[in-house]
Parts: sequence; structure tokens; C-alpha cells
Amino acid sequence: MTIVRQPTRAGVRDAAAKMTAILPPTPLLIAEIRGVDVAFKAESLQPIGAFKIRGAWHRLTTLDEAARKKGVVAFSSGNHAQGVAWAARELGMPAVVVMPDDAPVVKRESTLALGAEVVGCNRLTDSREKIAAHLAHARGAVLVPSFDDAWVIEGQGSAGIEAEDQFKELGFDGIEHVVTPCGGGGLAAGLALALPEARITVVEPEGWDDMRRSLEAGWIEEVPADAPPTACDSLQTRRVSQLTFDVLSRRSATGVAVSEVEVRAAQRWAAAKLRLVVEPGGAVAIAALLAGKVEPAENMLVLVSGGNVDPSAYAAVLGRAD
Amino acid sequence: MTIVRQPTRAGVRDAAAKMTAILPPTPLLIAEIRGVDVAFKAESLQPIGAFKIRGAWHRLTTLDEAARKKGVVAFSSGNHAQGVAWAARELGMPAVVVMPDDAPVVKRESTLALGAEVVGCNRLTDSREKIAAHLAHARGAVLVPSFDDAWVIEGQGSAGIEAEDQFKELGFDGIEHVVTPCGGGGLAAGLALALPEARITVVEPEGWDDMRRSLEAGWIEEVPADAPPTACDSLQTRRVSQLTFDVLSRRSATGVAVSEVEVRAAQRWAAAKLRLVVEPGGAVAIAALLAGKVEPAENMLVLVSGGNVDPSAYAAVLGRAD
Repeated sequence: MTIVRQPTRAGVRDAAAKMTAILPPTPLLIAEIRGVDVAFKAESLQPIGAFKIRGAWHRLTTLDEAARKKGVVAFSSGNHAQGVAWAARELGMPAVVVMPDDAPVVKRESTLALGAEVVGCNRLTDSREKIAAHLAHARGAVLVPSFDDAWVIEGQGSAGIEAEDQFKELGFDGIEHVVTPCGGGGLAAGLALALPEARITVVEPEGWDDMRRSLEAGWIEEVPADAPPTACDSLQTRRVSQLTFDVLSRRSATGVAVSEVEVRAAQRWAAAKLRLVVEPGGAVAIAALLAGKVEPAENMLVLVSGGNVDPSAYAAVLGRAD
Repeated sequence: MTIVRQPTRAGVRDAAAKMTAILPPTPLLIAEIRGVDVAFKAESLQPIGAFKIRGAWHRLTTLDEAARKKGVVAFSSGNHAQGVAWAARELGMPAVVVMPDDAPVVKRESTLALGAEVVGCNRLTDSREKIAAHLAHARGAVLVPSFDDAWVIEGQGSAGIEAEDQFKELGFDGIEHVVTPCGGGGLAAGLALALPEARITVVEPEGWDDMRRSLEAGWIEEVPADAPPTACDSLQTRRVSQLTFDVLSRRSATGVAVSEVEVRAAQRWAAAKLRLVVEPGGAVAIAALLAGKVEPAENMLVLVSGGNVDPSAYAAVLGRAD
């Protein structure tokens, strides 16, 4: 039996120190929702436009010289791909990413621009995981999953350490409640480890709220095969992992689901009030607050997880009324 | 003869210290233009969505208790209005703003939301300056011009001190070249004082490039009455001031003009590459680089000055091809 490394708070702190050494903190923006000042962590302003740079950096920096030469393989709908490509480029490592053919063009192009090789696959019929595992085996390269990995979870959690420091600098009390987008749960689990005193609410698109259902059930429930379409490409994960589920379950995290209409309203709100371009999956936590599914409160941290959206799709969202 | 207070570098440093005490720095985002990493100062992420909060805060904090009670009057197409309204609210002062009737709705609404009184005027037929001076006189309130004021110039310049600190934190050399949007020249002059070693390039919309022409001529030239329409509402200043012109002229600043098409391309680029919502006037410095009118270089600071744009107008820009 393989012993799976579990993510730890010490690991998250280590990841935070590594991030501080290489990138400035993403800003904490304050805006009012129903009369309450709420703090938004703009991870969409990372160099690759998403928090995924954190987990990739924390993971790849653990590799020795020999492993770095053999390179890295990842599978991702786009943001993890860019995170891995960015970290690999910084470390001079070759990178291959398996990406669904229907991923946003902007994510594919950015991954290529970062010097990674992109291998296409069909989101519905191919197993990205299997293709990636095969490629990694053939090359002797390390496979970096997008959330089912202790280092990746710890890396994403560094956003929580950073935000806690920013709360203190602003003279606020500590973070009491974290509201975060959730796909496979890497970011949510990392934040839970980073902020052991905080209440955790994960937000998913309707029909893709498997983490919410899993946390309620007490075991992992998958997304049904007939789940509705969603614009939240970065949150279309069919099954969370034992690692992320365990962390969140132990912390009694709960979940809410938001509709496509609520997500679009959140993207428009973010453009007008935060002056941020936010992708659908990056806007779900904002959507939960605006829709009244999570009550805005002081000492609340809301994650804005990504801003990679095709311009035409984004223009259409901003131009419509619902 | 009235002796007009001249803005100084010491004043800019004082303003920077005051800003640090009340607001976190706006982020410095790095993105590549034609293979060169360029640093963008995202002043669009200030609480009011523009740098104008700096000058207003530096000016209003110089007032004594008696003056604060009488309040403040400003005239502005929108961003200075919000800056003054924000600073006045923080200090518990009443604020009145004279704003053209065709100012973006989002700017008017935000000013009202900050608790200021808004007095409308016609951009073409009314003199905003005269209406504001009259209101200030009647109330015994202080009039805070949007750029023709030593404190306002010094306050805007605090962005340069902040950026220089950020350059150092990132391990870069000092700022060698500043490229900034220019309306009345308050920001540009402030940056020139903040960064005495840097080359200064001001960017204006075509037809409204009176600072460029003035710097070339050696005296102040006005915008002609038949200037073409521009989407850059925040840069529609018909005449720069002696204060701003003198600072920039002494520093041998030069200017370039960008077209409306170039401005829209810059707004789209900023959405895709910086994940920032940028208003037309806030995007002109980016436009100058993208259009090849200013050569991108290392140790260059590019100001992204504002992000207040009506959603429908912004959606239209993102949705079009030119």
C-alpha cells in the first residue's frame, strides 16, 4: 500500500514563504455588499491570471536537479496548465499539458506562450488523467495533478497566509470566514489548512456541486453524467479527491451552489465595483454573496480565483442584462 | 500679486507617507509587450477606481478643523469627483461636485454613493470652474481643483514613490522612463517630481494632445474648439495649468497622441493580459506602447490611471474588432 502524503499547515507556511520570495502578494480589494465592507483576494491578478501558480511552484521546487531535467506533465482545463507551465519555465523544466479541446482559447494560447507543449483531448470521451499518466511514464517526468496532491494543496493555501497578513496590515481582526470557488477542492483545502480558526464555505456551479453534496453526505459523491452545461470551465471537476475532501470534512466546511445567471451577475459586479476581469469559475464566491446565499460579514475573505476568459464570451456577459 | 505655492518633491514624499498610512499600495503588474517585460501601475484598483484619491487626500488633510466643517467643492468629469468625495467622507466633511451632464453614469452614481452632492453642468456651454468657484465662495468652502493645485499634484505623485519602492522590492533597478496618461497634467507632473531621474512621456488622445503641443512649443497651447470627440472623458481638458506645464517643461517631458482605435485595442489588451477593467482615458499609455509610439523597455513604468467605465460602453469595446 502506498502511503499518501497528507497536506499540513506547516507545508502551507513553507509554500507561503516560497511564494513571498518569488512574487508580490495579490491585492486585497475592499468593496461593499449590502452595506458591509467585504475583502476580496484578487488571485486573478497573478501573472498567469489564477491562483494555480502557487501549487505548481510549491510542487516543482521540491524536485531535485535530475527530476527537473525530465520535466513535468499535467492535465488541466487551463489554469493549472498555465501554473505548471509558468513554474516549469522559471525552473528551466520541459512541460507537457493535456488540455480538453473545448478549453478557452485564451488559456490554451497562454499555456503555449509559456513554452509548454499542449496535447489535446476530448473532455467527454478521453481520460485526461490516463493520457497524462501515460505521457509522464513514457518520459520519466513527474505528474502534477491539479488538486489531488499534498504539495499542490499546500501551495494553493499560501493565498490564505498572505491574506491573513494583509488583514493585519489593514488593521482588521483575523479572517473568520472564507468563501471560495471550488472545483476539485485544492484551493479550499489549502485555505482551510492556512486558516485553522476560520469557517469555510465552498461555492460551486449548480449541478456541479459535488463537494457540497459530499460534505453533506460524509463521503465523496460524484457529479452525475447528465450535469447541466456551465460557463465555469475551471470548476468542471467530476470527482473531488480524498485528500481535499478529508481536509474540508474535518473542518466541517459547507457548500452552496450558484446558478449561471448569478455567475454572470457576479462577473458584471466585479467589473463595475472591483474593476477586475473575472472568469465565470472565478466569480462563483462573489455570486454566492450577491445572491444572498452567503451573508456578507466583516472579517470575511472572498476568493476571486481567476480571470482567464475569452474576450468575446466576456463581452457577451457584460453586454447582457441577466 | 498672489504667490502660488509650487509643488515640491518633499511634498510628494509627504503625500506618499500619508497614503501609506491610509491605503495599501496598488499592485504593479508585469506583462510582456513585444518580448519586453513592462511594469504597469494599476491605479484603477484604488477604492474609487482611479489615482485621484491621492491628490484629494493630500489636499484635504492639510485643512484645519474649521475649514473641514465648511466643506469642499470640486469640478470634475468624474474621477476627481470621486476622489474628493472619498477623502471628504473619510474626514467627515461635506462635499459638492460640479460634474458635466454627459459624464459616465457610473462615475456620477459612485460620487453620489460616497455621500457627495452633485451639481450638473453642460460640458460645452457652462464654465465648471466658475460654477464651482461661486459655490465655494457662497459656502466658505475650499475649492479643490483637479490638477491646478500644488497639493493635488504632489498627492498624485505619491504613485511614483510607491512604484519606485515596488521596483526595489522586485529586485529591479530604478524607474528610468515613465509613460502616463495626461489630462491636465496633475499625475504627470507629480510623477516627474517623484522620480527626478526618469524620462517622462505623457500620452493624450488625438486632437486633445495640448500638453504634447505645449511642451513642443514652450508655452501653453489650448485644445482647439473643433477637437474631435473622444471616449477618453477623463482626459478632456481644454487647457493645462501653469503649475503642471512648468514642472513637465523643466523636465523636458515629451508627449505622444493615440487614436480612438488604439485606445480600444489597449482596453482589450488590458482585459486579456492584465485582467483589468480599464476606462478609455486610463488606457492611453498602454495604447502608446502597443501602437509602437513608445518603445517598450525594461525599467519602464506605465500608468493605468482609471477603471471607471459604463458597463454597456465597455462591453461594446470588448465585443468589437477595432
